[in-house]
Amino acid sequence: MAEPLSRRDLEFLLYEWLDVVKLTERRRFAEHSRETFDAVLELSADIATRRYAPHNALGDAHEPYVGDDGTVVLPDEITSGINEFLKAGLVAGSFDEELGGMALPTVVNRASAAWFQAANAAMSSYTFLSVGNANLIAEYGTPEQIDTWVRPIVEGRFFGTMCLSEPQAGSSLADITTKAIPAADGTYRVTGTKMWISAGDHELGENIVHLVLAKTPGGGPGVKGISLFIVPKYLPDGTRNDVALVGLNHKMGNRATTNCLLNFGDGTHSPDPAPGAVAYLVGEEHKGLSYMFHMMNEARIGVGFLATSLGYAGYLASLEYAKVRTQGRPVDQKDPTAKPVPIVEHADVKRMLLAQKSYVEGSLALGLYCSKLVDLQQTGDDAEQARAGLLLDVLTPIAKSWPSQWCLEANSLAIQVLGGYGYTREFPVEQYYRDNRLNPIHEGAHGIHGLDLLGRKVVMRDGAGLTLLAETIGDTIARAEADPALAEYAAALRTRLDTLVATTVAVWSAGDVAVSLANATAYLEATGHIVIAWMWLEQLLAVGTSTGDFYDGKRAAAQYFYRYELPKTGPAFELLTALDRTTLDTDPAWL
Amino acid sequence: MAEPLSRRDLEFLLYEWLDVVKLTERRRFAEHSRETFDAVLELSADIATRRYAPHNALGDAHEPYVGDDGTVVLPDEITSGINEFLKAGLVAGSFDEELGGMALPTVVNRASAAWFQAANAAMSSYTFLSVGNANLIAEYGTPEQIDTWVRPIVEGRFFGTMCLSEPQAGSSLADITTKAIPAADGTYRVTGTKMWISAGDHELGENIVHLVLAKTPGGGPGVKGISLFIVPKYLPDGTRNDVALVGLNHKMGNRATTNCLLNFGDGTHSPDPAPGAVAYLVGEEHKGLSYMFHMMNEARIGVGFLATSLGYAGYLASLEYAKVRTQGRPVDQKDPTAKPVPIVEHADVKRMLLAQKSYVEGSLALGLYCSKLVDLQQTGDDAEQARAGLLLDVLTPIAKSWPSQWCLEANSLAIQVLGGYGYTREFPVEQYYRDNRLNPIHEGAHGIHGLDLLGRKVVMRDGAGLTLLAETIGDTIARAEADPALAEYAAALRTRLDTLVATTVAVWSAGDVAVSLANATAYLEATGHIVIAWMWLEQLLAVGTSTGDFYDGKRAAAQYFYRYELPKTGPAFELLTALDRTTLDTDPAWL
Repeated sequence: MAEPLSRRDLEFLLYEWLDVVKLTERRRFAEHSRETFDAVLELSADIATRRYAPHNALGDAHEPYVGDDGTVVLPDEITSGINEFLKAGLVAGSFDEELGGMALPTVVNRASAAWFQAANAAMSSYTFLSVGNANLIAEYGTPEQIDTWVRPIVEGRFFGTMCLSEPQAGSSLADITTKAIPAADGTYRVTGTKMWISAGDHELGENIVHLVLAKTPGGGPGVKGISLFIVPKYLPDGTRNDVALVGLNHKMGNRATTNCLLNFGDGTHSPDPAPGAVAYLVGEEHKGLSYMFHMMNEARIGVGFLATSLGYAGYLASLEYAKVRTQGRPVDQKDPTAKPVPIVEHADVKRMLLAQKSYVEGSLALGLYCSKLVDLQQTGDDAEQARAGLLLDVLTPIAKSWPSQWCLEANSLAIQVLGGYGYTREFPVEQYYRDNRLNPIHEGAHGIHGLDLLGRKVVMRDGAGLTLLAETIGDTIARAEADPALAEYAAALRTRLDTLVATTVAVWSAGDVAVSLANATAYLEATGHIVIAWMWLEQLLAVGTSTGDFYDGKRAAAQYFYRYELPKTGPAFELLTALDRTTLDTDPAWL
Repeated sequence: MAEPLSRRDLEFLLYEWLDVVKLTERRRFAEHSRETFDAVLELSADIATRRYAPHNALGDAHEPYVGDDGTVVLPDEITSGINEFLKAGLVAGSFDEELGGMALPTVVNRASAAWFQAANAAMSSYTFLSVGNANLIAEYGTPEQIDTWVRPIVEGRFFGTMCLSEPQAGSSLADITTKAIPAADGTYRVTGTKMWISAGDHELGENIVHLVLAKTPGGGPGVKGISLFIVPKYLPDGTRNDVALVGLNHKMGNRATTNCLLNFGDGTHSPDPAPGAVAYLVGEEHKGLSYMFHMMNEARIGVGFLATSLGYAGYLASLEYAKVRTQGRPVDQKDPTAKPVPIVEHADVKRMLLAQKSYVEGSLALGLYCSKLVDLQQTGDDAEQARAGLLLDVLTPIAKSWPSQWCLEANSLAIQVLGGYGYTREFPVEQYYRDNRLNPIHEGAHGIHGLDLLGRKVVMRDGAGLTLLAETIGDTIARAEADPALAEYAAALRTRLDTLVATTVAVWSAGDVAVSLANATAYLEATGHIVIAWMWLEQLLAVGTSTGDFYDGKRAAAQYFYRYELPKTGPAFELLTALDRTTLDTDPAWL
């Protein structure tokens, strides 16, 4: 079976394009070198390929269930594979050295993680959700909270979750009803029900650290009343906290990640009358959502990588198939006795492979670019921090949504390349497609990111976000204009970028926020196409005049994206500029 | 749970638009009336809703398997539901009266079938594949063959299949290796392996009539050597023929339809040495593929209906959910204490519902339009027959492919409307999506239809097919131009239609068939959008000045399609006109 990611592409993106070795000149990463990066990536590829990929179908066919004793049962292969990941210390990748971490640049750590996401998406989530959880507590928690909850995660003993959604409140966190009441000892007691909690329960480690959004007395209405709490499954003294697994959701894909309905403080694990689950406030009261956004932004980039990795695995699997499967003859071959050719020779199969390649390699480039921004934001001077942070803010909704949409489409094309075989569970591509369908839903549904991008990100600080994005893309275009081989692309991207800026102005000239945001999803998707076209131009600049199949492949995929994909933004921007009211004016009774 | 189809929409399409009652003026349908049509549709809706829909998830969760005795085991509910369909005589719908059929117009029979396809796609296929099989034998078989094999199918006692693909030959039938050798008694002996045979084995009836493509000695190479055979599971004297079930394929969706690997003549059910399975030639030797195309064209329209029905069921399920699920507030609502609204109020949710509505109602219109063409072809005078037949030839690849692509997209949007809930198996939409993913694969993979449309259908008879399509669409535009309310749409469609014709000329001016066909899939998809826009204009003409929510819904969906979808054809036609060589020039080694 094909490896689920391309070592060569990662090498190109990290070293030939993003020049991540240069990051080692910064104090935080000074202990690192190309050699340590390569060692981590090699270790990741090895464990992912040996201990994650072989159990991908297994975890799908034998999804977790609740055993007779009320605990979650996972296949042994999943448990032992995750243990090998933990034993290798890979969960510690990006944490500070004083926490026991490796202080890897985020961009390298994400590349390492992508191996596991591509090899076994559902299995990978347990540890990566824990990392996001621990990063948040490390940022906003007290030293004691960090010692108690972060260190054991970095050591691979504890796991973590984020508990935001409730059965009646998913996209709208303002409507959560979980409550937290202060107790005499400075802790809190939480009661409520949380839904869609990934890795919400399992027996993989010694403890599960839930980060829970809840409302405390005296907070304002809506999101202003929300505070953030640590609610562990087991208290520091080892007693069971009152967090109860009510049930597991049965999903289309991503099955090996438990997805849970959890009750907090319902008395299952505490005396009657139940006082609520013991909870520890993180930071200050009523600032919970802003803390959680720290984790959510990280998680959104992570979802982009998850979608990208699944798309990548599907691309490579379908490419391998297309090169060995023979069927049919060239359309201009008239001799019926001629031998069938490998299907990769057919124009339409090449189209499906080029499309996949342009989607998945473009997405991977964007994910790594954003990850490097995190590193610059963490380690740069004030100006660089501000610039990287603002650009990251603007790009995050795209880095989450674009791969979720187009790497899912890549998976559909992978199935199509395999034909009937692709539709069977004997080949991996149908599972990739099912697993990937989650990604436009969680960590902010697709439409939410359109509202975020058009309603907040491009207009915040008087449009500074959009201006910075346009300048940054403009820099790339300017460099490309100097190369005759790239002139076609530079000109095309310049035109589309100008249209994006003009469209943004036109949309916000409506004078009615409902009209301005009516087609926010179209805006998100078209802007995403421009950003990915930018990523392709960046890659072509890194390719330069290099020769060989690998570089010609980059050129072909870029050409595909510019000829077949980028022009799709035209009708979308026209719709936006026209301030189309079709959706607004449709009465629900007509549907 | 919502009904899986809309009675009101069917009523509109059949009676207010297509005026199918007028068909009863023709001799073949003279026994029928609005009342008999309604009775069939009502009966279909009733059985589909009571006996098919409730077992859709069951057949998915408990897929067929091969029991210890080597026979296929299906859930009892599936068997008894199909028996109720057969008992009601619904399998006899479109057959001639002398065969025991109802002689229903195809257009009414397809509407009846759509109820079952929408209620339980996988369960519906057993009987509808049998109908296609019997129609072919009725057309090309001898009177004795018709008595022996067709009548029992019409009576609901036998089932039928089509056996084309082999493990090494799916899209390329020229490469089949199954052989048929003449026997002394005028029958043949068939040996070979057939793959992807839907409903290829089961215990639902007394017998299974396989229609098998095989090569006979002396035929030319490629498709010219192919002949068509009846190969029953049981011979007329009741003895078992040598047709062996080798295994069932395990699919992503559509699970309750068995999909089989069958061996013919491998000796499993015959003495050693095995002489091959007993087979009866249909028609003449070496004309098998042309006979099979009769069935394949019918089956392709059927796949379009299958995709449409699944899209429709998902649309209605997500609409029902969107009307009751509350979440969030209007974007211009500043008061966080205001009550959440039903999500159907949000612009982006309306977009997702309008998109689904425009796809599924547009597809249903196209399917019924094509079905009426079948009726006109069967019952019209020579000129009408020729016209209907030619138009049907051109439209068939679109009627198969467009719903397979866009009603699948509708199912994805239905999942998105339900959010996390839509991703679980507790709601029906994820299964619709999995079931529907089959449709771009079988009965000719998506790309094959692009080659068929651009490479054959629009150029055959000196372009008579395209000319007729353009004239027919032009007639609709001319009628719409007379109505100021439709002027916007008439003008838009006129422009796009002109572009289609000009693009076709430009593509074929390349002077190199490989270049002309390099982007055939883009041609298929863009032409499909024009055809569906035409279907929407036809519907608006039927709507006229009628008032009420139903008609306003038609207007809104049409507006959505013209504003959001039709403009997408622009970039596609530009790519085609440019004779883009990206795919041709890509060396497989670069991928």
